[in-house]
Amino acid sequence: MTIGVCYFPEHWPRERWERDAEQMAEAGIEYVRLAEFSWAVLEPERGVYEFDWLDEAIATLADHGLKVVLCTPTATPPKWLVDRHPEILQADPDGTPRHFGSRRHYCFNSPVYRRETRRVVSEMADRYADEDAVVGWQTDNEFGCHRTVRCYCDDCAAAFSDWLRETYDDVDDLNEKWGTTFWSQRYDSFEAVDPPRPTPAEHHPSHLLDYRRFSSDSVVDYNRVHAEILRDRDDDWFVAHNFMGDFETLDAHAVADDLDLVTWDSYPTGFVQDRRAGAPSMDELRAGDPDQVGMNHDLYRGTNDAPFWVMEQQPGDVNWPPHCPQPGEGAMRLWAHHATAHGADAVLYFRWRRCRQGQEQYHAGLRKQDGSPDRGYRDAVAAASELADVDAAHVDAPVALLHDYDDWWAIDAQPHAPEFDYWEHARTYYRALRARGVQVDLVHPETDLSDYAAVVAPSLHLADDERAAHLREFVEDGGELLLGARSGVKTPSNQLHEELAPGPFADLAGVRVDQHESYPADVDLAVETDAGSRAVSVWSEWLVPDEDTETVATHTTDLAAGTPAVTRAPTDGGSVVYCGVWPGADLADELVSGVLSRAGVATTDRLPDGVRVNERDGLTWVSNFTSDPVAVDAPDDADFRVGESSLDGFDAAVVEAAASDLSVRRSP
Amino acid sequence: MTIGVCYFPEHWPRERWERDAEQMAEAGIEYVRLAEFSWAVLEPERGVYEFDWLDEAIATLADHGLKVVLCTPTATPPKWLVDRHPEILQADPDGTPRHFGSRRHYCFNSPVYRRETRRVVSEMADRYADEDAVVGWQTDNEFGCHRTVRCYCDDCAAAFSDWLRETYDDVDDLNEKWGTTFWSQRYDSFEAVDPPRPTPAEHHPSHLLDYRRFSSDSVVDYNRVHAEILRDRDDDWFVAHNFMGDFETLDAHAVADDLDLVTWDSYPTGFVQDRRAGAPSMDELRAGDPDQVGMNHDLYRGTNDAPFWVMEQQPGDVNWPPHCPQPGEGAMRLWAHHATAHGADAVLYFRWRRCRQGQEQYHAGLRKQDGSPDRGYRDAVAAASELADVDAAHVDAPVALLHDYDDWWAIDAQPHAPEFDYWEHARTYYRALRARGVQVDLVHPETDLSDYAAVVAPSLHLADDERAAHLREFVEDGGELLLGARSGVKTPSNQLHEELAPGPFADLAGVRVDQHESYPADVDLAVETDAGSRAVSVWSEWLVPDEDTETVATHTTDLAAGTPAVTRAPTDGGSVVYCGVWPGADLADELVSGVLSRAGVATTDRLPDGVRVNERDGLTWVSNFTSDPVAVDAPDDADFRVGESSLDGFDAAVVEAAASDLSVRRSP
Amino acid sequence: MTIGVCYFPEHWPRERWERDAEQMAEAGIEYVRLAEFSWAVLEPERGVYEFDWLDEAIATLADHGLKVVLCTPTATPPKWLVDRHPEILQADPDGTPRHFGSRRHYCFNSPVYRRETRRVVSEMADRYADEDAVVGWQTDNEFGCHRTVRCYCDDCAAAFSDWLRETYDDVDDLNEKWGTTFWSQRYDSFEAVDPPRPTPAEHHPSHLLDYRRFSSDSVVDYNRVHAEILRDRDDDWFVAHNFMGDFETLDAHAVADDLDLVTWDSYPTGFVQDRRAGAPSMDELRAGDPDQVGMNHDLYRGTNDAPFWVMEQQPGDVNWPPHCPQPGEGAMRLWAHHATAHGADAVLYFRWRRCRQGQEQYHAGLRKQDGSPDRGYRDAVAAASELADVDAAHVDAPVALLHDYDDWWAIDAQPHAPEFDYWEHARTYYRALRARGVQVDLVHPETDLSDYAAVVAPSLHLADDERAAHLREFVEDGGELLLGARSGVKTPSNQLHEELAPGPFADLAGVRVDQHESYPADVDLAVETDAGSRAVSVWSEWLVPDEDTETVATHTTDLAAGTPAVTRAPTDGGSVVYCGVWPGADLADELVSGVLSRAGVATTDRLPDGVRVNERDGLTWVSNFTSDPVAVDAPDDADFRVGESSLDGFDAAVVEAAASDLSVRRSP
Repeated sequence: MTIGVCYFPEHWPRERWERDAEQMAEAGIEYVRLAEFSWAVLEPERGVYEFDWLDEAIATLADHGLKVVLCTPTATPPKWLVDRHPEILQADPDGTPRHFGSRRHYCFNSPVYRRETRRVVSEMADRYADEDAVVGWQTDNEFGCHRTVRCYCDDCAAAFSDWLRETYDDVDDLNEKWGTTFWSQRYDSFEAVDPPRPTPAEHHPSHLLDYRRFSSDSVVDYNRVHAEILRDRDDDWFVAHNFMGDFETLDAHAVADDLDLVTWDSYPTGFVQDRRAGAPSMDELRAGDPDQVGMNHDLYRGTNDAPFWVMEQQPGDVNWPPHCPQPGEGAMRLWAHHATAHGADAVLYFRWRRCRQGQEQYHAGLRKQDGSPDRGYRDAVAAASELADVDAAHVDAPVALLHDYDDWWAIDAQPHAPEFDYWEHARTYYRALRARGVQVDLVHPETDLSDYAAVVAPSLHLADDERAAHLREFVEDGGELLLGARSGVKTPSNQLHEELAPGPFADLAGVRVDQHESYPADVDLAVETDAGSRAVSVWSEWLVPDEDTETVATHTTDLAAGTPAVTRAPTDGGSVVYCGVWPGADLADELVSGVLSRAGVATTDRLPDGVRVNERDGLTWVSNFTSDPVAVDAPDDADFRVGESSLDGFDAAVVEAAASDLSVRRSP
Repeated sequence: MTIGVCYFPEHWPRERWERDAEQMAEAGIEYVRLAEFSWAVLEPERGVYEFDWLDEAIATLADHGLKVVLCTPTATPPKWLVDRHPEILQADPDGTPRHFGSRRHYCFNSPVYRRETRRVVSEMADRYADEDAVVGWQTDNEFGCHRTVRCYCDDCAAAFSDWLRETYDDVDDLNEKWGTTFWSQRYDSFEAVDPPRPTPAEHHPSHLLDYRRFSSDSVVDYNRVHAEILRDRDDDWFVAHNFMGDFETLDAHAVADDLDLVTWDSYPTGFVQDRRAGAPSMDELRAGDPDQVGMNHDLYRGTNDAPFWVMEQQPGDVNWPPHCPQPGEGAMRLWAHHATAHGADAVLYFRWRRCRQGQEQYHAGLRKQDGSPDRGYRDAVAAASELADVDAAHVDAPVALLHDYDDWWAIDAQPHAPEFDYWEHARTYYRALRARGVQVDLVHPETDLSDYAAVVAPSLHLADDERAAHLREFVEDGGELLLGARSGVKTPSNQLHEELAPGPFADLAGVRVDQHESYPADVDLAVETDAGSRAVSVWSEWLVPDEDTETVATHTTDLAAGTPAVTRAPTDGGSVVYCGVWPGADLADELVSGVLSRAGVATTDRLPDGVRVNERDGLTWVSNFTSDPVAVDAPDDADFRVGESSLDGFDAAVVEAAASDLSVRRSP
Repeated sequence: MTIGVCYFPEHWPRERWERDAEQMAEAGIEYVRLAEFSWAVLEPERGVYEFDWLDEAIATLADHGLKVVLCTPTATPPKWLVDRHPEILQADPDGTPRHFGSRRHYCFNSPVYRRETRRVVSEMADRYADEDAVVGWQTDNEFGCHRTVRCYCDDCAAAFSDWLRETYDDVDDLNEKWGTTFWSQRYDSFEAVDPPRPTPAEHHPSHLLDYRRFSSDSVVDYNRVHAEILRDRDDDWFVAHNFMGDFETLDAHAVADDLDLVTWDSYPTGFVQDRRAGAPSMDELRAGDPDQVGMNHDLYRGTNDAPFWVMEQQPGDVNWPPHCPQPGEGAMRLWAHHATAHGADAVLYFRWRRCRQGQEQYHAGLRKQDGSPDRGYRDAVAAASELADVDAAHVDAPVALLHDYDDWWAIDAQPHAPEFDYWEHARTYYRALRARGVQVDLVHPETDLSDYAAVVAPSLHLADDERAAHLREFVEDGGELLLGARSGVKTPSNQLHEELAPGPFADLAGVRVDQHESYPADVDLAVETDAGSRAVSVWSEWLVPDEDTETVATHTTDLAAGTPAVTRAPTDGGSVVYCGVWPGADLADELVSGVLSRAGVATTDRLPDGVRVNERDGLTWVSNFTSDPVAVDAPDDADFRVGESSLDGFDAAVVEAAASDLSVRRSP
């Protein structure tokens, strides 16, 4: 396990580089990422390349034993290119161009931009094909950041028609699958189908879903342009991309097919403010929410079932969330441990030194702009040293949580309650699993499930018989399945199934949905289980169980009172729990615990909020995201490889023991 | 009294139609609305008509004794028409087109679109002129839905200049009436006057008002295109339009002049969420607000002083409000009774079966998408059966509530407090009348008032001498008049009157407004009447009564303390109450009760919130919009035609008695 | 000290003018402002001038001894000019024109509009050059109102390139100073730099800052066009402009260089609602916040260190804030006294009579639209009479509060917390000074400081060595300096200094900022001083004092606990307090009191909220902005020139005494 850093030598005088490299090596850093956003420096005029500075930077780092990851610089096309080809700019739905002046202003479908991308990436790949210090590449940077997956320019309009032509037999097939009889929306050619531009009322949900698929596929194709050139040059270096956290619009599963290494960028105190429901607590403002961060770790690890990297790790205070209190004491070390515990093999801090220029001046580095070490530097040195002693193979998770971007996009297009967020809903189940110390893979529903003991599927919204058969096979082989609300409602084309929900899953789950309801978040809803009353919220289904299906929870809220809310259908193999509500934490725990118990998955006692344990190859990490100290009860012979059984606030420990052999409590 | 349904056979296989017709007939349904939004199916290519399916659908329904209402399909121009004539699209104020992909994307003033409208409506009218089963037509659908009354395209700019030319003597007349000396806004030709496009500061209020009048008139003209063609073909069928609820931008009075039958679309649990101030209660989320719904009933009944229809009645859960809890048990039956009580002769549920395609998949039908009966179906069958036994003539209301769209538009342009909503303010008085079991007509101020005992005019904002004379005549004939705040402030051109408010009404009301104030809604304001302290809010006027004018309420809030807030001026005939505040419910009740008492209108005791009684031709409906049971005290000999004296939650009853002979209380 | 009024004779019949003039004279009015927004009346067609009405209006007023201030009418270009030259319209960042229909729709950089401006201003100046009654001019009206300082049209794009060419040596100089290596934002020509249009992510802060400078400079240049023509005609009349309150986008210091007289427009009950954080109290809704108003008085007085005018004084209720309760009894008199106390020599009420036309019908005048006197009239008469007896020289303030628009623009571009408003933060210190009865000049940091005893610099954000030397000189001469948070962070080009903050001020302040943090406003933060615990909020810096620097306050909030928050560095002259937090009122008072005490500035006891005392040339005004009465303790021999020692709510008094000899308390 190792540590790295993101470095921008072009922002600093060359005389400083040598000292930077020295200090990096001293800190225990192994990887240095370079050349992100550097196009205008590498090619100041079209066709005039200036690679000398990068050669020198690589050589300087290599001299100190550091390994280099290069970036293709395409996230920031230079002004000379935009001036020559303004048609490469993205456009808003109403046609307003997204102009030069920040980043990610190019359209993924622009033929001109793809040509220019091939040119600059080829130049770089050729230049460094024989450079041993360069061990890998990052394609572009954070595809889709700043809501740029979806563009509405003329190039996209044409590409969308082509995409539809490849997807459907003919336009009648499209009319049939979408259902365009509704509101006279019939098309007589693929060319007639526009991107979803401003309209008086909401868009057709099948149109929206396909535009979201097309937009994501456009990024997949664009990434492949990079990957193919880079692969063509050198077999040894890896090709990676740095994904975003809690990111809806791009199908990471699909992009990952063209990558050797999946990485993502983790900013815990920012995420908890701008992409999670609910106001963050003070502890969360200082260290983030471990389940929000962990769910991304598990998503990207699950993407190609392999160790991942954190390509950018928050190094201290950052510029983009609404507020930025200083991270808790030790938080930058904690995040590196927590990432490793989830399966990361490397954690690269972003960035080496606070930048004096431009948009990110309020973003810390490991060192301050005057060169002195910042708080993150001390944490990074500690993490580097502790992780150097730790070696662990890939995480082996007994539970799969099924996630499909198509479901996300479909529910987002018709949430039926402002509060119904697909990802938040999935996180409810994820939290319950993690609060029991269980390792979880987030995987696509078509993944081979045979090695999992239990599968949790929060919302398999779009479904067909094939998907149902895949799950049936898992259950009949003895697997335990938990199927959540809004599953099986729609066809893959986003029409309602003619059968009642859960549609293709109804026979397997032994239940039909009689009614669905949505409620404002402040309405108190509840169900009753054997264990007592349990809070639920926002979404409520009235279930009709088949004869052999057991009722696990019953609605107690006025109109629905007495109606089944959660059911369990036994099969000859495992059983299927169907949960027709958005469960509160206690109900989620009860349901998940039941599934795990039946599946024979060992768990911990329910962990305190903000404290998590993760097992990886015989080692268990304890991560304390709170400011309160905690105490770990471990078997007597368990060896603490890092830390000890008493953890301070924002502290981490690594112990040689199974997670389920530990228990953790807040210190009195 | 009868029940109907909206039906879209084109969304379903033909083999299903026969069974659908059978089931409709069994349910007691009489009317079936067809062909809404069907242009692309009726005319898949320009000039290629495919009417066979509609012929067959009509025949199938007619075979089961069902009567058909057809719709002109113009609310959804097909893509082929938009592609050929993109100039028919509406435009936002900044010129952004409102594109194809939903509905209502056409401009009412487009000459091309009027030509195409004539073509398709003529084809349909010709086709069904001799078809007995077709008893009437709905023109288009919900004119103005999705904020589409007001368009800002080039066709509208030209049409607006023409409209001004017809409205004013010459441009100097416009300059004078508007008052364009202010901020150098003088025009030297009608062509120079643009639609109100984006400007640095707010628009001239006279400009805004005339653009609102012009926009509404454009719809009136466009509707007339339909009506004339339909009338030209067949004298027997009726011409109707389905209006929206709580709808500001279109003058329903003016459209109704070209209609035989006025109908509207009633969605109680949606309206209470998205077009009413204040968070809805749980009961309101389940059944709506009876006064919000009732005010629309009375508006559309008042529009041409005749029974109306509910052309679309909410059938269960719906897709478009923020949230959709299931309606209360029986609510779909309750709404049909409540509508009938207000004067509806038919209530058509929207729609027969939940649609699998497109934007309205989350909208229930009477039957589920798998064909099984939904909750609304059971309610509809009950309502059909109960109403079949009930026959009643037109509602005869002793009280008129005066409402003028021009006043709405003018106050909306200059509310002077974000909370001052013309319609909410009017509803305060409406509620007070309805809470006393009194029938109310909502009518235009120019209506002949001689048959009314009392008139309530919440805000006759724009006024001239003619309007004042009309009211004076009513009062001098013995009528009782209640005139609310902000009356008589402006000329019909939206200039301030030179005389102080209530301007032309000042002599009649015997009062002048010394000052007006607006307050945030959370500031507690109060006045004192003989009965004690009474809460008021948002708007406050300081009144100076004439010598013979009595002070009914006096301000008690600091600065205004001691100043008259409500006055009453006796005349030789009736008297005129002027209320210079936005009254709370208690003050509104006190003022309205006084007016009714002086006018000799019999009332009930004040009814519980959410419970209403309506008298129609000797029958009185009791409607319980709450989940609590209520008990009705009726004269011993009163016959309950439907239900009985104990009503469950969301229940209705019909009793042969005058409303004022009943009293209703919550069951203990 | 005198009173005036804004008058629009063109809105009224000529037969009324004579009476108006008479009544003005009777009221004690001296100045009448005319011809604002009158272009279309003065020149109804291009080249056809109609000045007769204005001649007559001036003559009528002059006959009654009234003095006239004329306005250039350029804030409202007529429709004929817009139709002929639509290119004069401003544009939004996305290119949407800001159309005709309100005011301020012209672009400051339009060559056509500058030509037309020269033409119409020359005509007016020629016409009235020999008219004795015309004593001065107002250029245009409220430059920048309705967010119009910043325009993004093509003329501005070209002018911005020119501005950059004049500002930087060459484009490499720009690239270096801005730091365009970041995100590949390098430019290869000045033409390549666009206005900040819509972009996917945020703009480069140096780009933003320069566009803000350029936009402000464009107004300065445009104002100079007026000033030069007016100066060219007549040496006797003054040239003034009426600025806005709390106004960020225009550098009033720079505009004032071309003015003889600085004036501004004061609307206390509007400002407290729409340009101040925090909900206004009921008293503030009735009279405003004296420190919000006072800070503008002191800003504009400080602009050219001379008495200023209030060119528009709120006369009663106004149309543009969200709500408008009636001003408190006497408030219109109070505001005139308060303005005079702050250094105004004239206060002109806006407007004479409520206007019947257009956008401002809900704006009171001194008289109602029917000609009768309104509440403001009675107050104005009282103020005129009381102020006629009062004569006082220029305010002599012992304290300077340093303010630089560049700092405002830079912090606004990167607030790092939504709550961090530059002006609100500065007002915290201003309030503390005013609560001690101390007179304050708001001046530019480059102002000669040698006459001040103390200087408070809330945020000298952009700094270089020259600015540091200027402050050092002040301190070494014995001055006391208070330097607030976020000072010295950036270069004048908006890059981070390489040295830690306060950068160039670090040696002088004897302190370095180790970390900065921002917090949501609802997080309770505190520091500890010798006097106890003190609340702070939003912004927190961790300070490292130099050896000789004393710690004045220490953080007590968890992570920062024990870290210095406020320091004081003694020098051989005065001392420098550095405050690294946004202080609550108590801490601000403690810090400011310490500074004043060391500087030898006499103060009052801490004044009640909403009550202020101002000294001007030996007279002290007591202003009570609350509804509660207050009592003044004054020296026995002090003569009350206006009022007495007991003040009612919203009352004012003038006493011959030093402010620091008074104390004020709420009456029991």
